Amino acid sequence: MAREGGRDAPNPFIDHLGLEIVEATQGVCRARLPVGGHLFNRYRVAHGGALFTMVDGTMSEALLSLLGAGDDCRTIENKINYVRPVGGGAVTCEARVLHCGRTTAVVEATIMQHDKVVAVAQGSYAVQRDG
Amino acid sequence: MAREGGRDAPNPFIDHLGLEIVEATQGVCRARLPVGGHLFNRYRVAHGGALFTMVDGTMSEALLSLLGAGDDCRTIENKINYVRPVGGGAVTCEARVLHCGRTTAVVEATIMQHDKVVAVAQGSYAVQRDG
Repeated sequence: MAREGGRDAPNPFIDHLGLEIVEATQGVCRARLPVGGHLFNRYRVAHGGALFTMVDGTMSEALLSLLGAGDDCRTIENKINYVRPVGGGAVTCEARVLHCGRTTAVVEATIMQHDKVVAVAQGSYAVQRDG
Repeated sequence: MAREGGRDAPNPFIDHLGLEIVEATQGVCRARLPVGGHLFNRYRVAHGGALFTMVDGTMSEALLSLLGAGDDCRTIENKINYVRPVGGGAVTCEARVLHCGRTTAVVEATIMQHDKVVAVAQGSYAVQRDG
C-alpha cells in the first residue's frame, strides 16, 4: 500500500547512499558518508552524483532544522564544484543556511576528507510553510 | 582483485540508478531512466540527486562521443534547476556539448517527461587527452 510521503517517510535513494546525519541544529547540519564501492564511478572514485546527493541531503537537513514541524522544503537549484576525487574511506559534509526567508532559502555546503576540501556547493530551496 | 578504472569499466552508482544510454554521437547523448521507487526521496518523487546523476552521466557520454578512444573527462562543476517533480514512469535526457576545447568543455542537458521539462543543467568538464 502506498505510504504518504513527508519529513519522516522512508528515503530510498538516501538509504542506498548510506548518508549518516550526525547533527542538524540551528541551520547547520553535519553529515558523514562512508564511500563504498557502490558509490563508485568507472574510475573507481565516488561518482559526482553520489557527492551531489550527499550535499543536497545535508543542505535539506540544515534547512529543516530552522523550520517548523509542519513546514517543508524542495530544491530549486544547486551548483556543485568538484575539487578532489574520493577513492574510499569516509567524507564529511557541513551545510549551513545562509538565508531563510518566508518562501525561499539559500544554503551552502562543503564536503571534506582528511582536512581537504572535496567539493563545495550552493543551492536555493523553496520553503513551504504550514499555514 | 582491483580492476583498473576507465571508460569501459563498471560504473556501480550509474548501474544502481538504471540509466540507459540510448544514443551518443557527435556531441549529443540521449538517455532514458525508469524512475522506480529505489530513486525516490521521502516525498515519493525522484530524488534530486538521482536526476542530477542522470544529467551528469548523460553529459559525460555526450562529451566522450567527441573524444578519442584514449581520452577521458571529469566533471569540474555542474548546476541543475528542478522544474517539476517526477513521481514514476520514465524520463528522458538529452545532453549536448556546447564547447569542446583542448582541456575543458561545456555541456548542457535537459530532462523531460511527457513533453514537459523536468530539469535543466549546465556543466563544465576537464578533458584529458591521450598524448
